[in-house]
Parts: sequence; C-alpha cells; structure tokens
Amino acid sequence: MKSSNKSNHKGINPRLLSGQKDLKKNNASTSQLFDLLKEGNITALSKAITLVESTNPKHQEQAQVLIQKCLPHSGNSVRIGITGVPGVGKSTFIEALGMQLIQEQKRVAVLAVDPTSSISKGSILGDKTRMENLSLHPYAFIRPSASGDTLGGVAQKTREVIILCEAAGFDTIIVETVGVGQSETAVHAMVDFFLLLKLAGAGDELQGIKRGIIEMADAIVINKADGDNKKAARMAVNAFAKALHLYPPKESDWTPKVHTCSALENEGIVEVWELIQSYTQEVQKTDYFTRKRQEQQSFWFLQTVDEHIKRAFYDTPEIKEKLELLLKKISENTISPFAAARQLLGSKSS
Amino acid sequence: MKSSNKSNHKGINPRLLSGQKDLKKNNASTSQLFDLLKEGNITALSKAITLVESTNPKHQEQAQVLIQKCLPHSGNSVRIGITGVPGVGKSTFIEALGMQLIQEQKRVAVLAVDPTSSISKGSILGDKTRMENLSLHPYAFIRPSASGDTLGGVAQKTREVIILCEAAGFDTIIVETVGVGQSETAVHAMVDFFLLLKLAGAGDELQGIKRGIIEMADAIVINKADGDNKKAARMAVNAFAKALHLYPPKESDWTPKVHTCSALENEGIVEVWELIQSYTQEVQKTDYFTRKRQEQQSFWFLQTVDEHIKRAFYDTPEIKEKLELLLKKISENTISPFAAARQLLGSKSS
Repeated sequence: MKSSNKSNHKGINPRLLSGQKDLKKNNASTSQLFDLLKEGNITALSKAITLVESTNPKHQEQAQVLIQKCLPHSGNSVRIGITGVPGVGKSTFIEALGMQLIQEQKRVAVLAVDPTSSISKGSILGDKTRMENLSLHPYAFIRPSASGDTLGGVAQKTREVIILCEAAGFDTIIVETVGVGQSETAVHAMVDFFLLLKLAGAGDELQGIKRGIIEMADAIVINKADGDNKKAARMAVNAFAKALHLYPPKESDWTPKVHTCSALENEGIVEVWELIQSYTQEVQKTDYFTRKRQEQQSFWFLQTVDEHIKRAFYDTPEIKEKLELLLKKISENTISPFAAARQLLGSKSS
Repeated sequence: MKSSNKSNHKGINPRLLSGQKDLKKNNASTSQLFDLLKEGNITALSKAITLVESTNPKHQEQAQVLIQKCLPHSGNSVRIGITGVPGVGKSTFIEALGMQLIQEQKRVAVLAVDPTSSISKGSILGDKTRMENLSLHPYAFIRPSASGDTLGGVAQKTREVIILCEAAGFDTIIVETVGVGQSETAVHAMVDFFLLLKLAGAGDELQGIKRGIIEMADAIVINKADGDNKKAARMAVNAFAKALHLYPPKESDWTPKVHTCSALENEGIVEVWELIQSYTQEVQKTDYFTRKRQEQQSFWFLQTVDEHIKRAFYDTPEIKEKLELLLKKISENTISPFAAARQLLGSKSS
C-alpha cells in the first residue's frame, strides 16, 4: 500500500479557497466539493456523505458524479470490520485502536452499519461521545450509520462512503456493526479484515454467537480482560483457539487468531494492530488481498442488481397480497411451493 | 407420523385394473396414474417422475396436476439427507441403512441431487448396481438424480419427486448428494435430518470439508471403521465431537452426534438408524419438526420465484453482454459497483 500524502498538504491554491467559501455558503459545485474532499477537507467530506445518504434524486445524481470522480483515488486503505454485541465495549475498543493508529500517523475513518438506527439516529451522539479523544482528533473522522430500513440500502451507502473517505486520504477504515440481522455478513463483504469482539463468559463461550460469525472472523478479541476478568479471559482464549482450529481452513490461508485486550486500560491494543498488519502483509503476498477486493466489488454489483429486480417484482400491492395468500396456502399444505411460485409469477406478464 | 397402509393393499378394484392396462400401453390418464401411484404401484410412480422431469410443456402440465393430487397424501415420512465425497462409500452405506429400514417394515425411496449428471446419466446404472439388494427389493425405490444444468432446477424436481414418493407410500426418503457446488445446501433445505459421511483421515479431519457443511450436519458418521481403520476412526470421532461441541447450538436444540460404522461389514448401521429416530422423536416433541418443514416449503416457494425473476432479467443477449463489460470495468476500478448496477438496470425499461 502506498502511503497517502494528503496530510502533508501545505499551501492552498486560489481555486480551493473559493471552493471553501462556496462550501460555507452551502453552494459549492460538485467539482469544488471534489477538489476540497481530495485535499482532505472534512467539511467537504461530510457534505459529500450527506449527498450520498440523501434520498433527493438531485442529490443522488450529484453523489454519483462525486463517487465516480473519487473512484481512481480510492482503495488505498486497510478496511477493518468490527462486530460484537452491545456491552462488549466496541466504542472503547475502537477509540483505543483508533488512537493507536493515529500515533502511527494513520488517518482513521470510523463508519457503522446499523440498519435499525433510522428512527432514533441515537447512534450519532452515542458514538461521538463514547469516542471522546478520537472524535476530537483532526486525523480521525467518525460517521454514524446511514439511516435506512433495508440492510441493502444502508450497506450500499456505507460502501460508497468508504470510497469518499479513501479519496479524502483516510488510510484506515473501521466499519463497526452491532450485528442485527445479516449486517455482519454485509460488513464482512466490504472489509479486508473481520474482527469479532467478545467478553469472557462463564465457560460457555459460544452461546449467543450467531451461526456463521466465527467462520467469518479473522480474529477474535476478548475485551475487558482486566482485574478479576483476566482468568476467565484466558480460558475464553483457549476455548476459541480450539474452536477456530477445528474449522475448515480459510480461503485466505490465514489462521484466525485469538487475543485478549483491555480497551479501557489500553492493554493489548498494539498487539491487535500488529495482528491486523501481519494479516494484510500475508495476504498481500499471495494476491488474496486484491482478489478478495475484486470479488467484493463484483458481489456488490450483482447484489445491487438482484435487490433491485426483486424489489421491482415484489413491491406492488397486488403481488404482496397474493404472496401472503400463497404463503398461507403453503403452510396449510394445499398447494405445492412450485405451483404457488407459478401462480405468483403468472400474476405479472413476463 | 401415521403408518402407511399402502403395502397392505390386498384386493384390486376394476378401475385400477383398467388403469394398469392403460399404463402398460402407455396411455394412462393423469387420474389413472394417480390412482395407481397412490396404491404404491411402482410403474405408475416411475411414469409420474418421468413427467415431472420432462421439459415437454404438456408433460409438465400433467405433472403439476399429479403433484397437486398427491400433496394431501404427502409429508408422512422421514426425509434423510446424506452427503460425502466420492469414495466415502455412500452407496454401500445407503444399501446397508436401506436394508435395515426394510427389515423394520419401512418403505425406502432413494433419490439423488447431482446437477452434473445431466450428460452422462452414469449415476443411474452406478447407483442401482452398487445397491444390489436394495434395488431388487419391492419395498425400495431407487431413482437417480434428475438431469439439469442448474442446481435450482434439479433440486425443484427432487422436491416434487419426494411428494410423489410419499404419496406412493414411501415413509423414508433418502436424498443423497455428492456435494457439488451448493448442492449440500439444497439437500439440507429439503430434508429433516442431514448426515455427513466421512472417512477417518490422518489426523487432519477437517481438511477438505467445505465451509458450512459441519454446521448443517445433524450427525457425522465415520465409515469404513473396520480392520486397520478402527483406531483412526475412533480418533476421528474424538476430533469431530470436539469440533461439534464448539459450534454454536442448533435451532433444533439437537446436539449433533458422531458415530463410526462399517457399511461393508454392516456394523454400526442399526445405531445410526436409532440416532435418526431419537432425533425425530426429540424434534417432534418441540414442534421443530413441523416448523422446519413449513419453513422449507416457504423457502422453496420464494427461492423458485426469485430464481425465475432473476433468469427473466439476466437471460437476454443484451444483458449478458453488458454484464460482462461492466464486470470488466469494475475489476479495472473504472466504475463503482453501484453505478454499474444502475447502468445495467437502465438497460431494461423498468
């Protein structure tokens, strides 16, 4: 990975200066916005993200032009996914990891995928206040989850925001999720490294872990390994190490690792970061890093198309009504699933 | 589960007799076919399956009428999925298990899901000769995989054949798969109990197992645990038992079991059958058995609809060409996955 020189920007050219004025007056053109964003201007980045997240068709059009412009300047980062149930200490962990990265001259963007945050938008305030130091640091950028009812929609926006952040010079992207529904799978499909944050439990470590999550994890980190928790944390490490060893090998050839840390006491955080670095070094040697990213791109392309054509079919009152009726008949075993499918498909001229 | 009385059928009514004549002359009506099938007539069952597997629209229409008629008489069975790589001894195992079931007055249908068998159709002969005793027994029915290029198509036909077999009085349905592509997932979604057949290896038991298979298994059976293999088989049991213990608990509350057997020497087969029975007893207590079947029905319904609407979109020369072009652009990072999706979707008036 090449290092970014955005943060070394010194002089300011007149074009940018006039753009900054227009930005303040809220009438910057798309190309002014792009110029500023590319220089690492946070206000421009925020404004661009707002366009991406807007449902206004005009904003969406502008957003697409921006993303297209940012695309050649994107990709130059490490993307880290972090999941864990509420209470596991995600914010404290991200704050500690983020500050560690900043010490190493990294620029860190923290995004979130949380399809349920649409109404309360509570996570905005929550994340920023819980990441006090990180949120105030000029090298960090924290953005809460885009709002939206569907995971597909929220995930798409987050993917687009990653492109904007990378073009703005952020070289480490952290995407967190609380793991509602399929959101872990969505985050896994947009990051290079996937980290599962856990607490040490009462021996039964795997209770409450959703099926499939462990297979996705590149690392499991047992947080709050401090004070009286230390022993339980060590036991949890053993249990998980065994579990991971017995899973089939990963396509990346990477053997997932288990660590403990105390985000609160800032212990074990450096080790987690070293782990992530050794992962990226290893998979960059085998071209897996690039290949996975390309597969992710194709995945999102096909996924978006599929979602759209499904929505186009299902989102009519007529189909919704028939669907419900047929599902009822199926549950009563009065129609075969395939005859039901034919009936539903026959409803639309195809 | 109610017991079937099909095999106790004694007298023959005139309507069936005339149907049998028409069947021989190959001009039985759909309703004659159904009457005979319901009485357990194997020729009628085979004929009905041929209609289901035919691509001829007239046959398909007949097949659908038949399935609809059979539906109220179906469901009264235990459906067992069996997977394992070639060489693991699937046919010998199914022969041994099938003969055990027949001893217990069961009627056993053996089906297969193998989306690659379309060209050679080699598996027909293969299965029947490799299951010598079972294939000759009047209480057994062995049918090779439906032919077809897509797993979706093959799986749909197998699902429909299950309905026909059950209506014909088969109370135990075994569906085997060699596990090509996603076929294990498809079989898992049509059975009550999923069994993974393995060989004892050289300590590294999980090598070569596809990700996700272990999470699907209700039992892992180490075959060929005979002669010099016995010790290795016992070690494999330990390794798998540990692995299974460390997976998150199943929705069914069933803890997957690991056994050894020698299908060749007919050892451990009774135990496997007892295991399957204790599973069905346990999940019938909690209504999980019924609930899972209903979920499977809805799954196949929605799956079929989704596949159809996707095919309707993608299967045009124009879209195929654009798709290829856009995938290329995405791999070169000159277009974002989402802009590409919009372009592809814009190709069709929506």
